[in-house]
Amino acid sequence: MSKSEIKLYYKNVMADVIGDEHGITALQLEDLGDRTSPLIARLNKERKAGKTPYRDLPYRTETAGRVKELVAEVKDGCEILVVLGIGGSALGNIAVQTALNPYMYNLDESQRDGPKMFVFDNVDPAQFASFLNWAGDKLDKTIFNVISKSGRTAETASQLMIIRELLGPDRFHKQVVATTDTEKGTLRAIADDADLQTLEVPDGVGGRFTVLSAVGLFSAAMCGIDIDALLAGAADMDKRVSREDFVENPAAINAAINHHFYNRGKRNSVIMPYSYALKDMADWYRQLWAESLGKKLDLNGREVRVGPTPIKALGTTDQHSQVQLYREGPNDKLFTFLQVEDFDNDRTIGPAPDCAAELEFLAGKNLSTLLNDEKRATEYALLHDERPCLTVLFDQVNEYTAGQFIYFFEVTTSLVGALFNINPYDQPAVELGKEATFALMGRTGDYKPECSYEQFADKIRAKTDVDQGYLA
Amino acid sequence: MSKSEIKLYYKNVMADVIGDEHGITALQLEDLGDRTSPLIARLNKERKAGKTPYRDLPYRTETAGRVKELVAEVKDGCEILVVLGIGGSALGNIAVQTALNPYMYNLDESQRDGPKMFVFDNVDPAQFASFLNWAGDKLDKTIFNVISKSGRTAETASQLMIIRELLGPDRFHKQVVATTDTEKGTLRAIADDADLQTLEVPDGVGGRFTVLSAVGLFSAAMCGIDIDALLAGAADMDKRVSREDFVENPAAINAAINHHFYNRGKRNSVIMPYSYALKDMADWYRQLWAESLGKKLDLNGREVRVGPTPIKALGTTDQHSQVQLYREGPNDKLFTFLQVEDFDNDRTIGPAPDCAAELEFLAGKNLSTLLNDEKRATEYALLHDERPCLTVLFDQVNEYTAGQFIYFFEVTTSLVGALFNINPYDQPAVELGKEATFALMGRTGDYKPECSYEQFADKIRAKTDVDQGYLA
Repeated sequence: MSKSEIKLYYKNVMADVIGDEHGITALQLEDLGDRTSPLIARLNKERKAGKTPYRDLPYRTETAGRVKELVAEVKDGCEILVVLGIGGSALGNIAVQTALNPYMYNLDESQRDGPKMFVFDNVDPAQFASFLNWAGDKLDKTIFNVISKSGRTAETASQLMIIRELLGPDRFHKQVVATTDTEKGTLRAIADDADLQTLEVPDGVGGRFTVLSAVGLFSAAMCGIDIDALLAGAADMDKRVSREDFVENPAAINAAINHHFYNRGKRNSVIMPYSYALKDMADWYRQLWAESLGKKLDLNGREVRVGPTPIKALGTTDQHSQVQLYREGPNDKLFTFLQVEDFDNDRTIGPAPDCAAELEFLAGKNLSTLLNDEKRATEYALLHDERPCLTVLFDQVNEYTAGQFIYFFEVTTSLVGALFNINPYDQPAVELGKEATFALMGRTGDYKPECSYEQFADKIRAKTDVDQGYLA
Repeated sequence: MSKSEIKLYYKNVMADVIGDEHGITALQLEDLGDRTSPLIARLNKERKAGKTPYRDLPYRTETAGRVKELVAEVKDGCEILVVLGIGGSALGNIAVQTALNPYMYNLDESQRDGPKMFVFDNVDPAQFASFLNWAGDKLDKTIFNVISKSGRTAETASQLMIIRELLGPDRFHKQVVATTDTEKGTLRAIADDADLQTLEVPDGVGGRFTVLSAVGLFSAAMCGIDIDALLAGAADMDKRVSREDFVENPAAINAAINHHFYNRGKRNSVIMPYSYALKDMADWYRQLWAESLGKKLDLNGREVRVGPTPIKALGTTDQHSQVQLYREGPNDKLFTFLQVEDFDNDRTIGPAPDCAAELEFLAGKNLSTLLNDEKRATEYALLHDERPCLTVLFDQVNEYTAGQFIYFFEVTTSLVGALFNINPYDQPAVELGKEATFALMGRTGDYKPECSYEQFADKIRAKTDVDQGYLA
């Protein structure tokens, strides 16, 4: 296991590089430090008071132990692992799998140490039917990891009810692992009733901060990922992001720079990995950022709505799709590149055909050289148009650096929340849509004191039924 | 083949629904019509003058004929199809494949009528190595479709050089299909030299508008997709989007509404399919929108930078990731949902466990009902916070409706370009990055009259080399 560290590189947001109109001056950076340092101290205090239990996940060795024990029990003979979960119960699992297992993991037995792995974080009927048609008899050799704190999420509950009918009671008992609350809730009741194997969704940790708990660790360990190294990386980063000296704390610098640019009209935050492996970390980050920071706040009696919009891009692919806009369109974006120094597998570009001497300069170079030169070239082009660029540098993508990255962005998020003076741990605005789904799907009884679910459903239909007058 | 039509539903952007501050009044809509109608006429005139050849792609029956002929020749015995291309030479291929073939296409022989299919639109060494390790002996049964108008795109050229060395001259000749310019350029020279099978990248059509040419059609036809129906759908949409009466023209309405909201500060355009199949259409749209509309323009001597930022989301998945921000964050987004009425494969939700009576209301419902009710619920929640919402309605996702959708958004893009008074067909801002890559990779000679590639490379390194003082 490599002990390499990820680093944040932030020179290319500075006024020295991109000019005074868009860049941060040395004085401004000092200011940012002065404002952010006390917040690091506040976060450290809150953490000690047990208010942010996600901070302690890297040290929960008993969780890792329980996960590994369960994996040892069920992995043998398991050919397919299906994760049923959505949002925070899926995005971390997907991100870790894409980061740490080969691209052809599901297609190539020789490239995997574990079952084929699927995450269904949607209820698309065609997608799920395609999977079930393929699975057929192999369903006997499938473990379903159902993940939900409450068990009442409509998507996950529906999937569970389909699987339960399909498997029948015996196989349901044997083949389902429930990751849920230890004591209460619908999925806990179902798990107890069917005597399922269970794992814990920790208390007080919002879904988007749970990847380093059993939520993310079980599927990872099933697929041959070294979860101890993942946690060790996170713990290592914990030391760095707890430092109260601003310039020594990468999360504080990252948070301050992000907050600064948001307030200066750069409300879009583009994350752009130059590594296929890190592509789904961008989706994980999208949730973390959007749900934590998209909030209403009261500013002396005035309601203000804040929240940077996270945008996922992928290098080099999106150079040929988004960079025209990124360079020449509005200067309303902060760019965060993820860059990897060493790739496990490299490939040398072959000789140029005689008839195409103009390609000669590429011959004999490594693909990794091309990929990283493309990153430099794109960054250079963006700097040319005064667009601020951050880079997170990875020596390698492995369990240890992935764990660091996750923890780094989690604490960055907490700090940006503190800078906005909002609560980054709730998500009040998702409730209305959830209740509306319940109403439309036929739930009965009281939705509110003055309104039944039936009445609520009528109200929703009135707004969303198609009015032929506005159809073209 | 179903003859169903896709429709644009636009009531939920109106002031009647979301209020006067954010919505469009009836009077404003009339105004938009008055401004847009002449532009439809202008586009129709330009098209007749041969200035927008992409408009005629649906009628090029000789292209479809040539593609089918070539497929008949090479499909037999082909187990793997690899597309090597990037940007417009990849995103359409991926979008069509995801839309029209089953989720498990590559993993399940019984669910496919064609070879396994991969598109490499990146130069990630680990990803490509993983594929090549798996392919091994199966490389003999692989067709590589290399797509590039010029052949000088660094990514595609490098992949081609790797493949050429790997296959050796005989197999290179037999197993590579080049989609390129008919007469000039690097890939044309390589194709002629090795006597490859070739297909045409049409003249005067930018990459992002080529999916309905041989660029997109060959991989589609190889994988069992009915390309005639795809073109017929596009041709059908052509009639509708050529109508000079604003209220009868869905692309004009869509363009006018998008342009209006951009000017009213809603600079982010979120496209959110409620269909896994349509998920990659959102990526295709991202390129179309960003490269076409992200432009500098001269407004009476003042330089203005315009361009909505296209954002991809997926329902229901992103309800649990982005909707908190979409509802409670800044009101700076226009939402476009894609909604599907009928799914080929549906699935009924099983009974609720006795211990979980609170889930009873879901039992016996179809997954498609849940998916579409979630869309309504999310839309309702967004309308509640005065966010404008458009919906593109599909009866089904099939070749015919996919063709309509593609053409609908292409012409919408042309019209938004006309409303912004920019050229939507060029992409001047991508050149600097391309040249910078060439310089860093060691190209020699003159980059500009006053600067060699070597000097240019030094300049780029000076800006992008890591300065230890800004590393945390």
